[in-house]
Amino acid sequence: MTPIVSIIMGSTSDLPVMKKAADFLNNMAVPFEMLALSAHRTPEEVADFARGAKGRGVKVIIAGAGMAAALPGVISALTPLPVIGVPLSATLQGRDALLSIAQMPPGIPVATTAIDGAMNAAVLAVRILALADGKLAARYDGWVSTLRQKIVKANAELDRIDYEYKVSDPEATF
Amino acid sequence: MTPIVSIIMGSTSDLPVMKKAADFLNNMAVPFEMLALSAHRTPEEVADFARGAKGRGVKVIIAGAGMAAALPGVISALTPLPVIGVPLSATLQGRDALLSIAQMPPGIPVATTAIDGAMNAAVLAVRILALADGKLAARYDGWVSTLRQKIVKANAELDRIDYEYKVSDPEATF
Amino acid sequence: MTPIVSIIMGSTSDLPVMKKAADFLNNMAVPFEMLALSAHRTPEEVADFARGAKGRGVKVIIAGAGMAAALPGVISALTPLPVIGVPLSATLQGRDALLSIAQMPPGIPVATTAIDGAMNAAVLAVRILALADGKLAARYDGWVSTLRQKIVKANAELDRIDYEYKVSDPEATF
Amino acid sequence: MTPIVSIIMGSTSDLPVMKKAADFLNNMAVPFEMLALSAHRTPEEVADFARGAKGRGVKVIIAGAGMAAALPGVISALTPLPVIGVPLSATLQGRDALLSIAQMPPGIPVATTAIDGAMNAAVLAVRILALADGKLAARYDGWVSTLRQKIVKANAELDRIDYEYKVSDPEATF
Amino acid sequence: MTPIVSIIMGSTSDLPVMKKAADFLNNMAVPFEMLALSAHRTPEEVADFARGAKGRGVKVIIAGAGMAAALPGVISALTPLPVIGVPLSATLQGRDALLSIAQMPPGIPVATTAIDGAMNAAVLAVRILALADGKLAARYDGWVSTLRQKIVKANAELDRIDYEYKVSDPEATF
Amino acid sequence: MTPIVSIIMGSTSDLPVMKKAADFLNNMAVPFEMLALSAHRTPEEVADFARGAKGRGVKVIIAGAGMAAALPGVISALTPLPVIGVPLSATLQGRDALLSIAQMPPGIPVATTAIDGAMNAAVLAVRILALADGKLAARYDGWVSTLRQKIVKANAELDRIDYEYKVSDPEATF
Amino acid sequence: MTPIVSIIMGSTSDLPVMKKAADFLNNMAVPFEMLALSAHRTPEEVADFARGAKGRGVKVIIAGAGMAAALPGVISALTPLPVIGVPLSATLQGRDALLSIAQMPPGIPVATTAIDGAMNAAVLAVRILALADGKLAARYDGWVSTLRQKIVKANAELDRIDYEYKVSDPEATF
Amino acid sequence: MTPIVSIIMGSTSDLPVMKKAADFLNNMAVPFEMLALSAHRTPEEVADFARGAKGRGVKVIIAGAGMAAALPGVISALTPLPVIGVPLSATLQGRDALLSIAQMPPGIPVATTAIDGAMNAAVLAVRILALADGKLAARYDGWVSTLRQKIVKANAELDRIDYEYKVSDPEATF
Repeated sequence: MTPIVSIIMGSTSDLPVMKKAADFLNNMAVPFEMLALSAHRTPEEVADFARGAKGRGVKVIIAGAGMAAALPGVISALTPLPVIGVPLSATLQGRDALLSIAQMPPGIPVATTAIDGAMNAAVLAVRILALADGKLAARYDGWVSTLRQKIVKANAELDRIDYEYKVSDPEATF
Repeated sequence: MTPIVSIIMGSTSDLPVMKKAADFLNNMAVPFEMLALSAHRTPEEVADFARGAKGRGVKVIIAGAGMAAALPGVISALTPLPVIGVPLSATLQGRDALLSIAQMPPGIPVATTAIDGAMNAAVLAVRILALADGKLAARYDGWVSTLRQKIVKANAELDRIDYEYKVSDPEATF
Repeated sequence: MTPIVSIIMGSTSDLPVMKKAADFLNNMAVPFEMLALSAHRTPEEVADFARGAKGRGVKVIIAGAGMAAALPGVISALTPLPVIGVPLSATLQGRDALLSIAQMPPGIPVATTAIDGAMNAAVLAVRILALADGKLAARYDGWVSTLRQKIVKANAELDRIDYEYKVSDPEATF
Repeated sequence: MTPIVSIIMGSTSDLPVMKKAADFLNNMAVPFEMLALSAHRTPEEVADFARGAKGRGVKVIIAGAGMAAALPGVISALTPLPVIGVPLSATLQGRDALLSIAQMPPGIPVATTAIDGAMNAAVLAVRILALADGKLAARYDGWVSTLRQKIVKANAELDRIDYEYKVSDPEATF
Repeated sequence: MTPIVSIIMGSTSDLPVMKKAADFLNNMAVPFEMLALSAHRTPEEVADFARGAKGRGVKVIIAGAGMAAALPGVISALTPLPVIGVPLSATLQGRDALLSIAQMPPGIPVATTAIDGAMNAAVLAVRILALADGKLAARYDGWVSTLRQKIVKANAELDRIDYEYKVSDPEATF
Repeated sequence: MTPIVSIIMGSTSDLPVMKKAADFLNNMAVPFEMLALSAHRTPEEVADFARGAKGRGVKVIIAGAGMAAALPGVISALTPLPVIGVPLSATLQGRDALLSIAQMPPGIPVATTAIDGAMNAAVLAVRILALADGKLAARYDGWVSTLRQKIVKANAELDRIDYEYKVSDPEATF
Repeated sequence: MTPIVSIIMGSTSDLPVMKKAADFLNNMAVPFEMLALSAHRTPEEVADFARGAKGRGVKVIIAGAGMAAALPGVISALTPLPVIGVPLSATLQGRDALLSIAQMPPGIPVATTAIDGAMNAAVLAVRILALADGKLAARYDGWVSTLRQKIVKANAELDRIDYEYKVSDPEATF
Repeated sequence: MTPIVSIIMGSTSDLPVMKKAADFLNNMAVPFEMLALSAHRTPEEVADFARGAKGRGVKVIIAGAGMAAALPGVISALTPLPVIGVPLSATLQGRDALLSIAQMPPGIPVATTAIDGAMNAAVLAVRILALADGKLAARYDGWVSTLRQKIVKANAELDRIDYEYKVSDPEATF
């Protein structure tokens, strides 16, 4: 199946975080590819990838990078596709990557997620793709409902914890 | 014409920045609407807007907010549409807004732009819409070429400045 | 007993921190409830909660949240009750949550505590409730005295440590 | 009329910001007093004030301070009343004051507002006082409705601006 | 022996850091006392201590505190003695304490050290006391020489490590 | 008169801030000298100054510097005198200078003041010198009293402002 | 004359800052060129420039950029020449650019200067070039001496200011 | 062999980080020396080193330091050689060292690397030395090619991981 989302990461050491994007796309039955490409170590491959992505049928690009995270911006500069950037917390808890990815100049946007927010990058990609794909939109809506059920259940459990607190005679505790 | 992009801002005082998004969409012939809605001051109107947007034909939502900028996240929580957040530099040079918008929890993405990056929000919206609209894609490609020409021209001017520097006998300056 | 304080948290994973608020209220014999509600994942439940709280007899709301911590502000927008916000150190050591909770726009206050300051949220709630409840005021005064005794005792212990330092002939150590 | 809110500021130069608290309390017909007291320059007066406030009938204390803003915490240490702290942007855009006020240790809470958020300090004070004062609660509810009308009106004006954008033939602009 | 330096800490949990100040003073044969006093939890004891210190023969006060670290400033406000503040890294890596201690208003100085810089607080105290105590000055000079010898020895060891690197044929390593 | 305080600044452009230290010393009748010496531009002069200061009768050194503010630390490394560092807000609002001055390694203390806190540097110097100079101590105590009177007077004026607020019928304002 | 230093800037609006590099090179009689090239807006031109620079005789590249400042790193990725990066204070006082330029991953260095430190970029380039150019080394040494004279002269002026302070009878001022 | 690169560190405890610079120089067959010298603890040795380095044949100096990292700047002030500064993450994750090293005043440059970026310091040194050493330039080019091969191989491995994801029937996962 032709991938319609590309997940790019600066280094294979970023896989544990970026895998969350892959997991969600898998869940949503969105075909994707994963590539390790570095704006600083393999600039030519990055340029080739970015220029060729649209022609190969890719619709959304997710790029994760840490430190002086140039990768998402450099890709955005060479493609008309929407590019989602994931700042990775390699150093300085990810503040360097957040600023390096978010603070793009006018004309070359990168859709920045939270630090290490790879799952949200995939959710955003699904929302974008669902604009023109009703079946994906329905799958996404189903997932949203499921997520909500979980919170409701967690809340119910919390009520029980709460109960434990209140059965003790509070006057007595002081 | 039915708007397909909604530009939301927390306050009409945000208009000078958010207008840049409107200008670009106008340029790209993308029908849009602009609304002042505040997650904190008109929460019910925000909820109504977010729940109804997809049904009214909106495809992408751009939301700008400053300080404890809850607006983009709150909208994202109530719509399956892609939401683009623009942190505004109302206080602390926009660092509070950047973190309040970018640091979304898993499941509810906001595509964050640079601080005051309203134009890029619109460029991102166009890239998303162009995935399913060949004519818009062509208009966007045209704009990209034009932008590049301008830089090339600016560079040529710089060469002339450079010339000025070099004609003076540099040995003499010391 | 009808709860007069609501402790809200974005996720049950916040329980270890938010439990400190519950412990103190228990200590002060203040009836409370604990709920997991997320501004981003269960926005409708949050809205229902916030609109209904005053009617159910709740007087003070404590809301803890991390990252882009919209919860306290979103609740404050829908209730006339005082809302106390606890920034949680989920990411960036809690600086993102601190700014997301403290930097509220004029008109919609959130009483922000220290990062992970759930106990102080409860102490503040007790101070507020004690304004109209003399018995609670007396219990609180008692607790303050007890706390002070502990410090005095700790100081006495320190004096003994100090003693150890001084018995050695300091001239000899060099 | 006996003041029930005390507005304290470290220096009279803080008046332009702290005045916003006074204005809102005036608006809500809440009797208040304003005092310049400095934790660092008049520590004894601060201690006397804090110890005596409850006895004089004060119910809520609002304290604004900049830089190493010890004032709100020092007052909170000597009173059982709720203390609201307003970080002032005297230096470092108020980040020093925000941390100096918010990061209180367990047991001594300060309800921290946004940087320069003096108006919200007063709104919070009113919410607290309204818990036991139905007439004040009604006045506050009235103010909230009025605030909402203003936003709705502002939005309507924005619609007209929006209209201007759309009447131009967007195709023609490119 | 009458203490001439007071080492104050907000809580006995600060002892592992503040002990370094005691160790150095012991080393220099400077009589000192150690007390746990909190600007927020035992404000009256702090005031009594600060007002009485000079009369009891204390010449320099070292005060360590974390978070919203009001202790050194509050003491400085009530004594004409030099006060040295040590920001402790209890939260936010000590940045909150650094700003809370260093950013004092004009007129009430605190001599701020590095985060957790308790040893330097003692070294500074010794430099101050040595201005009027020739024997202490000589002991301090001796310690400085000893410190320098250690670095010289460490450097010599480094030379041997360096040697290891260079004996391998570097051409061969590529 | 032999100077007993040296005020050093990295550049004569720092004079408007550092002058406040000179003014206070003048006020306290403390003889001082002012020198422009740069750790980076005149390192040898700095070393000569630091090594010779004690021998010339200097007792306290105040050093102000901005950016990568090495000056106070470099002086402290070459003198046994107490060195007070004033971070100047030349760039980044002085945060770079604050960290460059405060974060000294163990053994080489710099007594750091607030950003641009030159006056407090002089107040600290006076407190240090007053330890062995009863007449200076008395002058300093006099100044402290005067400062307190000013605050008391300012407070009285504030009371009058307060009055203006309250005479208006607050009920009428809503 | 063939340029041996290239000064690159992301936009011609960076000229007022980057001009300082040109001025110093002119002063040192080092032939240079100035080009406006953007990693994000003219990525292909940047790549062509970086790949061709060494072949054209360029020895050192100076690249200034603001915000998500990818330019210096992207150039460094495509050339074996030393690349000096100048973070520009376009937004956030340059902190975003500083991190985007300094935090390069292992293998692709950028020699980062102070924020807006274009002159130092040129001084560093001259130091590098002077390693193999004795005449340039001599010119640079001359400039260093001149710089030092200026400081000495400024200091002498400061002495006169100092004098003014001391002639007034300081006892009289209090 | 006469060292042409000097690797200086403030303390031998910095060796684990600074060793990476040594390793790379070894790899590139560049003769180097390693010394522990502290701007604050051995200022005279630093000055002697800096003044003598060029005369001994050193061409590039690499200096690593943490906290108030004065070392690289102080060396740069006393040598015409290019000085590369490595901020070490001893405290505050290295942000203090980054600002203390990067924010040098005009005239005295330090080529700053990433926090703990010792390897890049050596790579930069090699790029500088290779300007006048064709054999070193060739060795460096070889290393760059090797580095690139590794990334290509890592990418190929990633493709296999990707495969695993896609063979599972994604429709089934939901």
